[in-house]
Amino acid sequence: MSYDTLKKIMHTVTDLGQAAAVLGWDQETYMPDGAVIGRSEQLATLSSLIHTFMTNDAAKAAVAAVKPQLATMPERERRVAEMFIRDHDRAVQLPAELVEEQSRVASLAQDAWKRAKDASDFSIFAPLLQRTVELKRQEVSYLGACAHPYDLLLDQYEPGLTVDVITPIFDRLRVGTTALLAKIQPNLAQANDDVLHRSYDTSTQLDVAREIVQALGFDMHIGRVDLSAHPFCTSFGATDVRLTTRIRENDLRSCLFGLIHEAGHGMYEQGIGEDLARTPSAQGASMGIHESQSLFWENVIARSEAFWTWAFPRLRAAFPTQLADQTAESFFKAINKMAPSMNRVESDELTYNLHIILRFEIERDLVAGVIEVADIPRIWNEKMQASLGITPPNDAEGCLQDVHWSFGGIGYFPSYTLGKLYAAMEWNALKVAMPDVTEQIARGNFAPIRAWLRENIHQYGRTELPTEIIKRITGRELTEVDFLDYVGARAARVYGF
Amino acid sequence: MSYDTLKKIMHTVTDLGQAAAVLGWDQETYMPDGAVIGRSEQLATLSSLIHTFMTNDAAKAAVAAVKPQLATMPERERRVAEMFIRDHDRAVQLPAELVEEQSRVASLAQDAWKRAKDASDFSIFAPLLQRTVELKRQEVSYLGACAHPYDLLLDQYEPGLTVDVITPIFDRLRVGTTALLAKIQPNLAQANDDVLHRSYDTSTQLDVAREIVQALGFDMHIGRVDLSAHPFCTSFGATDVRLTTRIRENDLRSCLFGLIHEAGHGMYEQGIGEDLARTPSAQGASMGIHESQSLFWENVIARSEAFWTWAFPRLRAAFPTQLADQTAESFFKAINKMAPSMNRVESDELTYNLHIILRFEIERDLVAGVIEVADIPRIWNEKMQASLGITPPNDAEGCLQDVHWSFGGIGYFPSYTLGKLYAAMEWNALKVAMPDVTEQIARGNFAPIRAWLRENIHQYGRTELPTEIIKRITGRELTEVDFLDYVGARAARVYGF
Repeated sequence: MSYDTLKKIMHTVTDLGQAAAVLGWDQETYMPDGAVIGRSEQLATLSSLIHTFMTNDAAKAAVAAVKPQLATMPERERRVAEMFIRDHDRAVQLPAELVEEQSRVASLAQDAWKRAKDASDFSIFAPLLQRTVELKRQEVSYLGACAHPYDLLLDQYEPGLTVDVITPIFDRLRVGTTALLAKIQPNLAQANDDVLHRSYDTSTQLDVAREIVQALGFDMHIGRVDLSAHPFCTSFGATDVRLTTRIRENDLRSCLFGLIHEAGHGMYEQGIGEDLARTPSAQGASMGIHESQSLFWENVIARSEAFWTWAFPRLRAAFPTQLADQTAESFFKAINKMAPSMNRVESDELTYNLHIILRFEIERDLVAGVIEVADIPRIWNEKMQASLGITPPNDAEGCLQDVHWSFGGIGYFPSYTLGKLYAAMEWNALKVAMPDVTEQIARGNFAPIRAWLRENIHQYGRTELPTEIIKRITGRELTEVDFLDYVGARAARVYGF
Repeated sequence: MSYDTLKKIMHTVTDLGQAAAVLGWDQETYMPDGAVIGRSEQLATLSSLIHTFMTNDAAKAAVAAVKPQLATMPERERRVAEMFIRDHDRAVQLPAELVEEQSRVASLAQDAWKRAKDASDFSIFAPLLQRTVELKRQEVSYLGACAHPYDLLLDQYEPGLTVDVITPIFDRLRVGTTALLAKIQPNLAQANDDVLHRSYDTSTQLDVAREIVQALGFDMHIGRVDLSAHPFCTSFGATDVRLTTRIRENDLRSCLFGLIHEAGHGMYEQGIGEDLARTPSAQGASMGIHESQSLFWENVIARSEAFWTWAFPRLRAAFPTQLADQTAESFFKAINKMAPSMNRVESDELTYNLHIILRFEIERDLVAGVIEVADIPRIWNEKMQASLGITPPNDAEGCLQDVHWSFGGIGYFPSYTLGKLYAAMEWNALKVAMPDVTEQIARGNFAPIRAWLRENIHQYGRTELPTEIIKRITGRELTEVDFLDYVGARAARVYGF
């Protein structure tokens, strides 16, 4: 009886969240320019109602009634209820004034960040980032004690992981990455990516990308593809999953790998168990596990040599002139060039993590008060030089390149690298379960791969913690070893060492 | 202070309504096929919350507090508050079980109607229509006493109008229409519309239609155009108004006049006063007044000879081969053919009203219990024969042609004809205010027309009753005379009598 009451609350909260997601998708794809203010009011009303239904007396009573029953509930229901209670407990601890102030500051800070980036002047953004950090420190203080204050922020994106766990893993990952880069250095000429920057008809690019993600297993009957300024995936339940990509005439990677990445997110959402619909478990387990799915398809599968055995003839049929001088092998090398660069989003799968590690260290120390906002540009540049051997010429290309801090997304960055580590561990587990997986990929037979991911990850939605998922699949704890092995083997193939 | 509380409630209710409208638009344009169930749950949650916030104790308290202050409130605020109170009073009278049962039956009835239409068998639809009518009779009984029970249903679509007012007007309209048709009969050969059914490239059709509605004054910065199975206009506030149309290769009218019609609705929404945003007045005054705006642009303006003086060269530039043998005059005649036909939506602006009048009479008598559902096919066919001289060969082409009754839209049909009567009265008022309006149209100068409509109708949104609007603009009560004069003059021009 009590669980039914809780379920009704979960349905309301989830339906409202999905409605808000439709409005968000619309805003990025089709909404007319002049509609921004009205849309922000509609969204503010929806999110305020979500907060209300999540934390009001009815929710408190339902949670209190269900808590004593948890031990005797069927496993799956118990997990769902626990996720709601988790969200509820966090939400009720935060005063409404703090949440409102954070949302107000976030909208000002995003604007200031844009202006600062355009002017390449960190000082324009600094006061609002300062305020953002102060509010995050307050948020942490409401959430109670923890080994490291940053753990309480990380918990929103990667529940169960902590600074104590991540720091040594990231340290070893940096060492391994640096060692691998040193091996690549003398062989850089082996990978030439000029071919990616020829002229490619934009609508043909989109056609090819759509065909490929459908072949991988993204279901267009319960999903669709549109264009937007930045690629994203959003879901309004497992039966309505929307991907977007962007197309650049002179960069063949942008549309294709952008869409494969988002389709990885999308297949995760499409595979979530029907019984979880309209609950807080009708979503991915965490940002990192979600990212493991997008990276699994984008990098592990679609940047592999086996994949291009199947895909290259298809791509060349679409662009016969531009790809006339290419082979599956030369193309595989072109899309796997690994070299330090200034920009996170343009970097390759190896050096990407160095960008993440420096951001993690800065935000971890900011929250703890070890460093202050004013120190960021200097520390950023020092860390860039130390880990990537590059010093940004200005703030725009340096510490202002990412939007995340401006919307208060402190604690978010580690998910990207965790996704890479999870994906490599998942890949090793899949190879054990399906020894001929590489041959299947080369034949374009992706259905068993998707089935394995669905069986082992997707169907669970958000009923387990990331640590539980990884343990269940691999029998091991999170490690950087699988990723370093995987990327090392790929680098060796590309650069011939 | 009390008004501020009421305002907050109005904002919540309006924002939720607009969010639901976004979801509805998405469903008709881009939503994947497989998402129907999830979407209906999201929409059910939103409409149930709207009902809750409209009728709960907080709303009752706010209404009770504001009522004594109405007399001393500024006019515009008072009008807005009165509209909310109107909606509130109606909503609180209806038991939640009735509303839920109506919504449940509506979804079953729509399905039954589709099956009945496909099978051309009224008996498949009859039991659910019977239930729909019973629920409507119950609804009326909750809403209190009235001269005619139908008045309480009509009130939702055309507040302020009653059976007593409409019946004699519609009777005279039928007589006038029949007389006009008798004059046209010997001259039918004058209007040949074969040209409309040649082959027209669909994307060029859409381009031309978009250009024309922008020229008329539909603002794409705060609006957009998409395709859907049936054309519609929806608004999420004055700064986000969406039109759809459909395109048929062999019917030049479908896309162009469909879009102009919807743009008439859309310009109304775009012109609503900013101060009314997020209130129950941020919409058209009634279905009939809304229809007067769409018909004003579609028929009064865009089917006029003056309009085609300007538009025909543009259309011929887009379709030089297909229109080589046409002149502005021959094209004007082709799009104004007037002759009895079986189908409401395919009929011309003169005979259209005969379709409406028979529907009005049937639903009026159904609600009053004068006739029963089982009588409908017979009565329909008798009335078709009497007023249009045609007997439908089967139910699909006869009494099953419209969706309205299946979703419970009883009381809706009169709005279509009222829109035509209003539009003709508005046109006469505009000609007094702007004596050279015909010359302006011929020059393609539509801005002053839109400005006049905005000044006199649009900016008021839903702050006045339809009767008040017409009285303010024309100084007169609703009449069929203006429409009969207008359509008589056009028929005379087309058929040369």
